Amino acid sequence: MPEVIFPLDSTKKFEDQEKVGHNRWHPEIPPVATVKPGDVFRVHCREWFDGAIVNDDSAEDILNAPLPTVHKLSGPFAIEGAQPGDLLVVDILDVGPVPQEDSGPLAGQGWGYTGIFSTNNGGGFLTEQFPDAYKAIWDFTGQVASSRHIPEVSFTGLIHPGLMGTAPSAELLAKWNKREGDLIATDPNRVPPLALPPLPQDAVLGGVPQSDFDRVAGEAARTAPPRENGGNQDIKNFSKGTRVFYPVFVNGANLSMGDLHFSQGDGEITFCGAIEMGGFLDLRVDLIKGGMDTYGVSENAIFMPGIVDPRFSEWLAFSGTSVTLDGEQKYLDSHLSYQRACLHAIDYLTKFGYSREQAYLLLGAAPIEGRLSGVVDIPNSCSTVYLPTSIFDFDVRPSASGPHQVESRMAAPMAKNK
Amino acid sequence: MPEVIFPLDSTKKFEDQEKVGHNRWHPEIPPVATVKPGDVFRVHCREWFDGAIVNDDSAEDILNAPLPTVHKLSGPFAIEGAQPGDLLVVDILDVGPVPQEDSGPLAGQGWGYTGIFSTNNGGGFLTEQFPDAYKAIWDFTGQVASSRHIPEVSFTGLIHPGLMGTAPSAELLAKWNKREGDLIATDPNRVPPLALPPLPQDAVLGGVPQSDFDRVAGEAARTAPPRENGGNQDIKNFSKGTRVFYPVFVNGANLSMGDLHFSQGDGEITFCGAIEMGGFLDLRVDLIKGGMDTYGVSENAIFMPGIVDPRFSEWLAFSGTSVTLDGEQKYLDSHLSYQRACLHAIDYLTKFGYSREQAYLLLGAAPIEGRLSGVVDIPNSCSTVYLPTSIFDFDVRPSASGPHQVESRMAAPMAKNK
Amino acid sequence: MPEVIFPLDSTKKFEDQEKVGHNRWHPEIPPVATVKPGDVFRVHCREWFDGAIVNDDSAEDILNAPLPTVHKLSGPFAIEGAQPGDLLVVDILDVGPVPQEDSGPLAGQGWGYTGIFSTNNGGGFLTEQFPDAYKAIWDFTGQVASSRHIPEVSFTGLIHPGLMGTAPSAELLAKWNKREGDLIATDPNRVPPLALPPLPQDAVLGGVPQSDFDRVAGEAARTAPPRENGGNQDIKNFSKGTRVFYPVFVNGANLSMGDLHFSQGDGEITFCGAIEMGGFLDLRVDLIKGGMDTYGVSENAIFMPGIVDPRFSEWLAFSGTSVTLDGEQKYLDSHLSYQRACLHAIDYLTKFGYSREQAYLLLGAAPIEGRLSGVVDIPNSCSTVYLPTSIFDFDVRPSASGPHQVESRMAAPMAKNK
Amino acid sequence: MPEVIFPLDSTKKFEDQEKVGHNRWHPEIPPVATVKPGDVFRVHCREWFDGAIVNDDSAEDILNAPLPTVHKLSGPFAIEGAQPGDLLVVDILDVGPVPQEDSGPLAGQGWGYTGIFSTNNGGGFLTEQFPDAYKAIWDFTGQVASSRHIPEVSFTGLIHPGLMGTAPSAELLAKWNKREGDLIATDPNRVPPLALPPLPQDAVLGGVPQSDFDRVAGEAARTAPPRENGGNQDIKNFSKGTRVFYPVFVNGANLSMGDLHFSQGDGEITFCGAIEMGGFLDLRVDLIKGGMDTYGVSENAIFMPGIVDPRFSEWLAFSGTSVTLDGEQKYLDSHLSYQRACLHAIDYLTKFGYSREQAYLLLGAAPIEGRLSGVVDIPNSCSTVYLPTSIFDFDVRPSASGPHQVESRMAAPMAKNK
Repeated sequence: MPEVIFPLDSTKKFEDQEKVGHNRWHPEIPPVATVKPGDVFRVHCREWFDGAIVNDDSAEDILNAPLPTVHKLSGPFAIEGAQPGDLLVVDILDVGPVPQEDSGPLAGQGWGYTGIFSTNNGGGFLTEQFPDAYKAIWDFTGQVASSRHIPEVSFTGLIHPGLMGTAPSAELLAKWNKREGDLIATDPNRVPPLALPPLPQDAVLGGVPQSDFDRVAGEAARTAPPRENGGNQDIKNFSKGTRVFYPVFVNGANLSMGDLHFSQGDGEITFCGAIEMGGFLDLRVDLIKGGMDTYGVSENAIFMPGIVDPRFSEWLAFSGTSVTLDGEQKYLDSHLSYQRACLHAIDYLTKFGYSREQAYLLLGAAPIEGRLSGVVDIPNSCSTVYLPTSIFDFDVRPSASGPHQVESRMAAPMAKNK
Repeated sequence: MPEVIFPLDSTKKFEDQEKVGHNRWHPEIPPVATVKPGDVFRVHCREWFDGAIVNDDSAEDILNAPLPTVHKLSGPFAIEGAQPGDLLVVDILDVGPVPQEDSGPLAGQGWGYTGIFSTNNGGGFLTEQFPDAYKAIWDFTGQVASSRHIPEVSFTGLIHPGLMGTAPSAELLAKWNKREGDLIATDPNRVPPLALPPLPQDAVLGGVPQSDFDRVAGEAARTAPPRENGGNQDIKNFSKGTRVFYPVFVNGANLSMGDLHFSQGDGEITFCGAIEMGGFLDLRVDLIKGGMDTYGVSENAIFMPGIVDPRFSEWLAFSGTSVTLDGEQKYLDSHLSYQRACLHAIDYLTKFGYSREQAYLLLGAAPIEGRLSGVVDIPNSCSTVYLPTSIFDFDVRPSASGPHQVESRMAAPMAKNK
Repeated sequence: MPEVIFPLDSTKKFEDQEKVGHNRWHPEIPPVATVKPGDVFRVHCREWFDGAIVNDDSAEDILNAPLPTVHKLSGPFAIEGAQPGDLLVVDILDVGPVPQEDSGPLAGQGWGYTGIFSTNNGGGFLTEQFPDAYKAIWDFTGQVASSRHIPEVSFTGLIHPGLMGTAPSAELLAKWNKREGDLIATDPNRVPPLALPPLPQDAVLGGVPQSDFDRVAGEAARTAPPRENGGNQDIKNFSKGTRVFYPVFVNGANLSMGDLHFSQGDGEITFCGAIEMGGFLDLRVDLIKGGMDTYGVSENAIFMPGIVDPRFSEWLAFSGTSVTLDGEQKYLDSHLSYQRACLHAIDYLTKFGYSREQAYLLLGAAPIEGRLSGVVDIPNSCSTVYLPTSIFDFDVRPSASGPHQVESRMAAPMAKNK
Repeated sequence: MPEVIFPLDSTKKFEDQEKVGHNRWHPEIPPVATVKPGDVFRVHCREWFDGAIVNDDSAEDILNAPLPTVHKLSGPFAIEGAQPGDLLVVDILDVGPVPQEDSGPLAGQGWGYTGIFSTNNGGGFLTEQFPDAYKAIWDFTGQVASSRHIPEVSFTGLIHPGLMGTAPSAELLAKWNKREGDLIATDPNRVPPLALPPLPQDAVLGGVPQSDFDRVAGEAARTAPPRENGGNQDIKNFSKGTRVFYPVFVNGANLSMGDLHFSQGDGEITFCGAIEMGGFLDLRVDLIKGGMDTYGVSENAIFMPGIVDPRFSEWLAFSGTSVTLDGEQKYLDSHLSYQRACLHAIDYLTKFGYSREQAYLLLGAAPIEGRLSGVVDIPNSCSTVYLPTSIFDFDVRPSASGPHQVESRMAAPMAKNK
């Protein structure tokens, strides 16, 4: 086991740990540790809500999920010699749930959760069709997840961090705040909001001194979106064996990470769509000096996924086009066409006895693939969603004999949007 | 070899064949042949421009590509017993270039092409950045494509029909025309246009009697977009071994197909982005009576891709978010985030000595994957594009030693947008 | 289509063609054509028995299969500039059944066959347990094979030449004859024989002049075994996209090939175990001058299999050890342990309603994998055979609910060993 | 983490643990714990030599490896309700090196080893060509192994137990002793021996009472070979996600396991050929009552490998036939043909600058595949060995530019056979 440079005690809150991480992006958050190029180290990660979501059969916790508190990130970690303009190479050597703890109140201790946020508290990809809060608890048996809330399905996890990234420079942070503020200003009262501005409430800023805290909290960017520094990319194949290259914007690079997922479908469509959990990451870092310019990488992360994904040979795929449910034709809107593809998959699964919400939760959590199949055939883009058929305990293919009916012991817990 | 129910003679134009297909969707286009459930048959397909694009080193033909003439489709084929409400099962048993002809003036005779349309003649996914016309010719050696216009890259084809679908009912056609007309009306002079209205010019309508021709030509839908009937979905994995389920809207189903591709990247991003060619399809059809209701499939095609895709184990991936090149923040726009991901990949490839247009053409034609990675992390969606590293003759991964430089014998031919 | 340098007319016998191939190895068989390094060309191949096995429901033809007549090979083809000591690079660009002919009396015209040879006419891997002759006919639908003689199973073909190789030098040929003669001499009357000596009867020697015919026929090696020149390796993954490197023993290399298989399991266990057929090969050749010494390749072929194998994700595997059916312990005998693994698989399949012969035929023809799992754990070697579960129409896995029973419309045809 | 029902303290010898396992097979070795069908539990496993092989640059420990002491097995574990005639279902939920310990003197604490046994102490697959002892130490970085003793190669581990099995009945044990004794009697002084008879020296028999110890030790079977109960099968794909079905011969089944490998090539050719280590296994057990008869499984294990193997797309393969190095023709000897294939691969790798021993060690440890390609083409069987090309840091394919030369910082340690 590599040296743990960011330990977490499962019995304590995130803010009460020996080393305190952060839940906002800001260049002034000081490193909690420094590593050298070539170093291998372990980092513990807390699940993104720090225990607010529990292993029960109610969705009240999802309804009231404390969004201003996320994401609880481990770091920042400074890399010796890293300077703006470099590429930071990060190898994900290993990643898993909370080591040696398979029961307990924290997601990652043998279980995880998927939620549908209510429209008034975050919403999700299909919030217009799914305004209420729902939850599914997933139990881990070895590398396999199954849920008492979604019958007759199980799958091998593809564990990954949803979020990893380098610290922004002051200039980059200002750019984020300006452009996101401009967007919010176009419809400031929208529910769900268009974007999330800096929010001092619930800000955790690691070792920022008290004297600077309020200023920094008022400037620091929220962690929800992916940005130039990587961040909350939620890429399901970002699993062990992955090598990623991040632009460096500040001295030391200041790498942070968190939001582990046991599994996720492309898009993480319910917002809280992956199987959320805490756990650990074993990482190795290196530098390509001046690599941003050498390779033309300045505002995105490049990565090479690992080679140990679960192997599937058969998929059932659904397509969607950029026509709204009301029949309105939109112009080449791949976001809409993916929504329609997902809705088609949900429609299909309900014929097997799943509730619409069970199907939606499943698409968020299972290793489905979402593809941009056609993006030029005016006026319709074509997106597709692929379901691996072997995750179902029954034959999910269309046939002359008609759909099997699942036996649902328990519905997915629900709490009404308010 | 199954019976050829739609033969094409490579020495004759599409309209001069023994059986004449069509290039518009309309329920009144009569079947050219009738098959039974369970039947296996062969269909020849002409490349979508019927020979207008030639194997040379000029892009004038792409600049002047006759868009009103596409797609040259084989069919319709009636399936005995098919009725509205059924699901039509189609197995793609085999698909390939023009059989036994590996040289000649038609794409599919040993070669194919990829084009970038100019902004004033169709445009493409990145037309703002690439306004001019470009072309790349690909030579086929066995199942492998390589191009004199794009050096040091080659890849195994994943041959597929870009377009297949059932005939719309009169009601469905009216719905298409209404919703697409409404969209066009919002900006009727836009270049490129928002959508393509019915166009009598260059309409080919198979066996529609002369008396009805003008009326039908005035109503018939263009074939560019995918719609409820499948159509021009441009799904790169729609290759041999694929089983697809189409909704049936008219008696007989009236299945048509065409627009073969030797290979394509997810999205077919240059519009004429696949390696375009003519060839053949061996198909088997069957019916699931009443299957549209049984399986909840009414406005999309469901499919199961085949199991013989080229096997890749290593990918280099680029991400993009929904911020414009000008720095404007957009709200969860997956179309934009895929554009940014592709532009990042193009930036990267230019560091190896490719021109920007060579890189763009390559992303259209090579078996890249485009994924909707994050669609909920407001305000940024995250799309990713994956390049299989083994298609390059050199090591395309970032490293401390810097990028290899390709030797370009010949640039991609260009013709100025006008 | 590349130039056909070795055409075959399906209506004529192998010896009556425009160009006549051969069925023995000898350095004096003159080339039928000469190609240059870099050339791409097509070769037709006749099925190995030249039509003696027919598409019916009797096994009399298998019982009386004319073994002295095999293998009917296309070639030899001389490669300009090839000299002893070079490595000949051969790319299998494409391979398939008889082009454009899917019905007819020749295997490869839409169908193929698998046989169990009787003990007195060739035998096979399990001839002690299976002394009689059996046959299964396979029908090709696109790339998929199924058989009226083996119910409820079908699989995608992995088409390959069972046999390809360069001509031996006179010295190498003499070595073969010496060592194989020595082996035969240890038990000259064994049934089946230990090896096959030169046999003038039924020898086909291409353009060998009449004056030399009898001498050459008396020296020329039989084509059954693989040897230093490649030859009848029967490697199931030797499919399109494969690159192979052959040692060159004579000027021109003199490459020959044949014995096409639509599919085969590792080992080709019934001897006539693949799905035998005729068809075509598209090849490209090149040379690595002096490559035998440079790469230490002097008595074997090196190859790199293609990347478009059918994709399977789930396998059911059986192990065997080197203990005979009579309970005698043998010392690290991997041949025996693979026999026992195959017998275990056969035992298992009979529980699903297959006859033992149907199971044996299936293991010969389906894309099973045979592995040398343990070769050092004295006294037992451990071999394993892997069956892809998706080739069965039913769930072939062990479970508490017990085995499904197949409905056999027709048994595999049988003819008694005599 | 599942409950640990067989804990091991890394600071203590195998015989000094809280629960003591065994290193012989005998029905009277009492269970150390009892589990129920459906139970999930963790078992620690000690590396097979219990620490005798150390992490240094000498091969003296391999030369003197205490073979009578192996394998140190965890168990037996009784399964409630298991009776002779049942099939015991075992799911390998997870498997890995010593949890949370990545440095220390025991293999499995961040490192492992591969050895070539000397001819006078065990030998191996190629002991005639490799009579001396050699060792390679492998370091684990995340899931990847690399060695200071074998330059420019690294690979993702496919961790698995080399040995797992149920207890033999008294009758089955007697059968083993009889047949193996008969074999030994044919050449009792052979070096290496033909088989290993019961050996009281160094026997560890768990809870066998003192009164019975000598008798049991005199009867108990050695653990080297695989047999009807599974045992030391050394199947490299027996990794996490695997489901295996064992015959049950005694009440309770009495399952034992050990001999973990970080990686192994098919055959484990150097005898100590895998990357040996200790670690843990998470297992789930179930029963198919009467399953031995229902499924025809009486003398072998059936298994279904997991779906998360490392993904390779390109392989370089070598073939061998059953002709000895001295040129003697053997009859269909797949053991010999695999030896020749491995020797061909070794010859090839030496051209890149590896010593013959480095190449041999690599073939034992890396995820190579060994196939029984042809087993019927008299007189030559054809075996093949496949090397994944991406495990090498350089291009290992043959080409006109000739082989790259590795820089060996250190040879593989050697100790002379005596």
